[in-house]
Amino acid sequence: MKVTVHKLTPLFNPRSIAVIGASRDPRKAGYIVFRNLVENSKRLLGYKVYPINPYAKRILGVKAYPSITKIEEDVDLAVVVVPAERVPLVLEECGEKHVKVAIILSAGFSEVGNIELEEEVKHIGTKFGIRILGPNCLGVFDSYSGVDTIFLPYFKVLPDGRRLSSLPRPKRGSISLISQSGAVGVAVLDYMASEGIGISKFISYGNKVDIDETDILEYLLYDDSTRVIMMYIENIERGRRFIEVAREVSKRKPIVVLKAGRTPSGARAVLSHTAAVAGIDKIYEAAFKMCGILRVYTLEDLMDSSKALAYQPPAKGNNIAILTDGGGAGVMASDEAETLGLKLARLDEKTRQEFRKLKSSGAIVDFAITENPIDLTGSATTEMYEICLQLLLEDPNVDGVILIVLHHVPLIVDIENLVHRCSKLIKEYGKPTTVGTIGGSEMAILLRRMFNEKCIPAYTSPERACRALAQLVKYGLYLKRFS
Amino acid sequence: MKVTVHKLTPLFNPRSIAVIGASRDPRKAGYIVFRNLVENSKRLLGYKVYPINPYAKRILGVKAYPSITKIEEDVDLAVVVVPAERVPLVLEECGEKHVKVAIILSAGFSEVGNIELEEEVKHIGTKFGIRILGPNCLGVFDSYSGVDTIFLPYFKVLPDGRRLSSLPRPKRGSISLISQSGAVGVAVLDYMASEGIGISKFISYGNKVDIDETDILEYLLYDDSTRVIMMYIENIERGRRFIEVAREVSKRKPIVVLKAGRTPSGARAVLSHTAAVAGIDKIYEAAFKMCGILRVYTLEDLMDSSKALAYQPPAKGNNIAILTDGGGAGVMASDEAETLGLKLARLDEKTRQEFRKLKSSGAIVDFAITENPIDLTGSATTEMYEICLQLLLEDPNVDGVILIVLHHVPLIVDIENLVHRCSKLIKEYGKPTTVGTIGGSEMAILLRRMFNEKCIPAYTSPERACRALAQLVKYGLYLKRFS
Repeated sequence: MKVTVHKLTPLFNPRSIAVIGASRDPRKAGYIVFRNLVENSKRLLGYKVYPINPYAKRILGVKAYPSITKIEEDVDLAVVVVPAERVPLVLEECGEKHVKVAIILSAGFSEVGNIELEEEVKHIGTKFGIRILGPNCLGVFDSYSGVDTIFLPYFKVLPDGRRLSSLPRPKRGSISLISQSGAVGVAVLDYMASEGIGISKFISYGNKVDIDETDILEYLLYDDSTRVIMMYIENIERGRRFIEVAREVSKRKPIVVLKAGRTPSGARAVLSHTAAVAGIDKIYEAAFKMCGILRVYTLEDLMDSSKALAYQPPAKGNNIAILTDGGGAGVMASDEAETLGLKLARLDEKTRQEFRKLKSSGAIVDFAITENPIDLTGSATTEMYEICLQLLLEDPNVDGVILIVLHHVPLIVDIENLVHRCSKLIKEYGKPTTVGTIGGSEMAILLRRMFNEKCIPAYTSPERACRALAQLVKYGLYLKRFS
Repeated sequence: MKVTVHKLTPLFNPRSIAVIGASRDPRKAGYIVFRNLVENSKRLLGYKVYPINPYAKRILGVKAYPSITKIEEDVDLAVVVVPAERVPLVLEECGEKHVKVAIILSAGFSEVGNIELEEEVKHIGTKFGIRILGPNCLGVFDSYSGVDTIFLPYFKVLPDGRRLSSLPRPKRGSISLISQSGAVGVAVLDYMASEGIGISKFISYGNKVDIDETDILEYLLYDDSTRVIMMYIENIERGRRFIEVAREVSKRKPIVVLKAGRTPSGARAVLSHTAAVAGIDKIYEAAFKMCGILRVYTLEDLMDSSKALAYQPPAKGNNIAILTDGGGAGVMASDEAETLGLKLARLDEKTRQEFRKLKSSGAIVDFAITENPIDLTGSATTEMYEICLQLLLEDPNVDGVILIVLHHVPLIVDIENLVHRCSKLIKEYGKPTTVGTIGGSEMAILLRRMFNEKCIPAYTSPERACRALAQLVKYGLYLKRFS
């Protein structure tokens, strides 16, 4: 496997990049990509970047070349952003130059029926041993190396002059995203950036004339900065190899997959979209199960699960406890938990005793419910949360906790202290915990942000927190097979 | 039915209110309630408010009375916020004063095992013919009359001095919310306020010693400002009557219900929470179906569905069209649609012809997919959205549309114009449409807000938009039985 891994290194960590089709026109993809690469390179003291454009002497102050062959130094990575019909020519030049990997951003190949042209590109790649990502893709965003070939702008300027963030890049983190759809990919990036969720690598591979989901997955196995892998896919071509690789990967890193085209309507849409055969969903289902892939069915679940897996350890079992300050929210979480196959842990006798003591000492109100789900009621305080959470985390019957904090109750005011104390305990005990809140007030937003910043994944409903914890349980149970 | 309706009018539209237990201490519920009532009364020139407190001469400048019996004028509504053990006494006084309705906010009754005290309260209510809401509830918020007995603060002040919105009240609107859980209720209000979704009435009825979900539902049938009813319930006591009433209501106004305690774990939690028997879920399921209630299973769906029903007309059938600028998002929506029992409409021959014309004239790109789901691809423009949306709305085979707008594509910049043109068409054709977006960037947030403000309900994912449209279809098909 190592060979392939090395072959893809220039895709993420090139020493030098040539942007073929670099432009001086700010509206053009060739400008956006070149500018981002130059700026990131300056900031990170990374790779060298060469603009290739026969009609320009310099672009953004950097000396331009009429052809990649005119560059004296070696070029690891070529980013191709010229019209489709010119791609074969420039790719031949890349071959002469011994470029290792080419990202072909250009569209106009098999996705518009131009199958012959795509075959030609493939052939040139094989002939020269160039690994190709694309065509018809957004390429790569690597938050560590600074490689960013997403040709969509960070900001847009409205007619009234307002400059609004449109596609902010997420900060550095441990999640990598592989997406067969460029649009879905960047939309997830937009979401991650605004939620403060970090990313390691994003890969949009388009028509996958060469590098496919399996190659990338294989690479990510050895990528230290990737701890969780998120995938949006519509089909898998090399099924057997994919299963082999995924099985290896998921022993070490969770893989969350949204496989679209799971219904006949969806499959027909896939055929129109990527000209791919979505395949029989039951086969995908079985394959995913076999190799420990965590399958999700909606975009929310894809993002929610990945966040949970990036922030929290897998659970050792499926017995969970719920701690809440609102009875109704506790009921909703209980319903969702049971629906997902989780069990409400039967608390240990020692824990029960401790709860009785807390009540008689007045540490918690005597009308609090101390059966699981634990309901501190509207009289909840930070101290009550802390002391009860500790009991639950200590209980040998509890494998994970759903912490529901509805900030509306009167005595929950100093949320920074609440978050600090709870997250300290959660880290100390190492049992996976997810947080459910409700609402969009300033308090609600701040509360979630504070928990997220402490790597305690917080969600906008009890059910979402529950579904996220269920993935930590599912992955934990899968890992158990190998221990 | 009319009699009951009239009896509850003072709950929402009293001419005068006495707050028994009004306080001068800003930390106390008796202060918050009294202050909100006074402020709303001034603002709206509504009811009179009397503070009842034997130890105060004036509260917030208003003359206080030692007992409700000392007020000379009539009192329609009493809001009781004294310790539980004093409730019977003040309620007797309400009886002497011929108060019509009492909201008992005080806790400490059956929910903490104090069943006898609750029986006493019930008895006094019956004796004097006072209708009682509560005890152990948050009472009422009526955005039109200004009645607001929610004793939780709008703002909280953090230790560092920051003043953050905690429980903003939603603006005026057409959704009413009945919640057996006060905490869930206010959490939904928090969400609605921050999303800009308007409310008519919120009712938290707590231990329902007298007024229950059925009474309120009956009242809302005749309430002109309520067009959609949202319910969070854990049990229904008068099942037969509830069905009778709900059947009448849902012919005219959609009812969306989240019935918690639907699993054994949830039912056990309900027993702890409201001491209610959640009941056999299949019976609830059948009853809801029988009377056209739209059942949801998660908090998101409760809120998403209600918004859709408040903003858009019901659909005439289940054939939907999807219009997108991202193929992947279209696939996800197709999968979700089929899962929910919707059908991707087979477009009319005339529509197909028109699409072909659009392609050959260059009005839309020739590689756009014009099979349903329609995919404008990353080359989408406002003009393409407008012209294609019109074709779909005009198509006799299409009952509703899911409009997916991923703002990241290059040519979608002037989103105000896009929203303006699309919403104009949607209103013109009167076919229900929901919008799916992805992301949390400034563009994404503004795009959703603009659509929502035009009453085109917008959501954060294709799937959520799809689920919302599915409710419009479900309700439309239910209504068809009576046409």
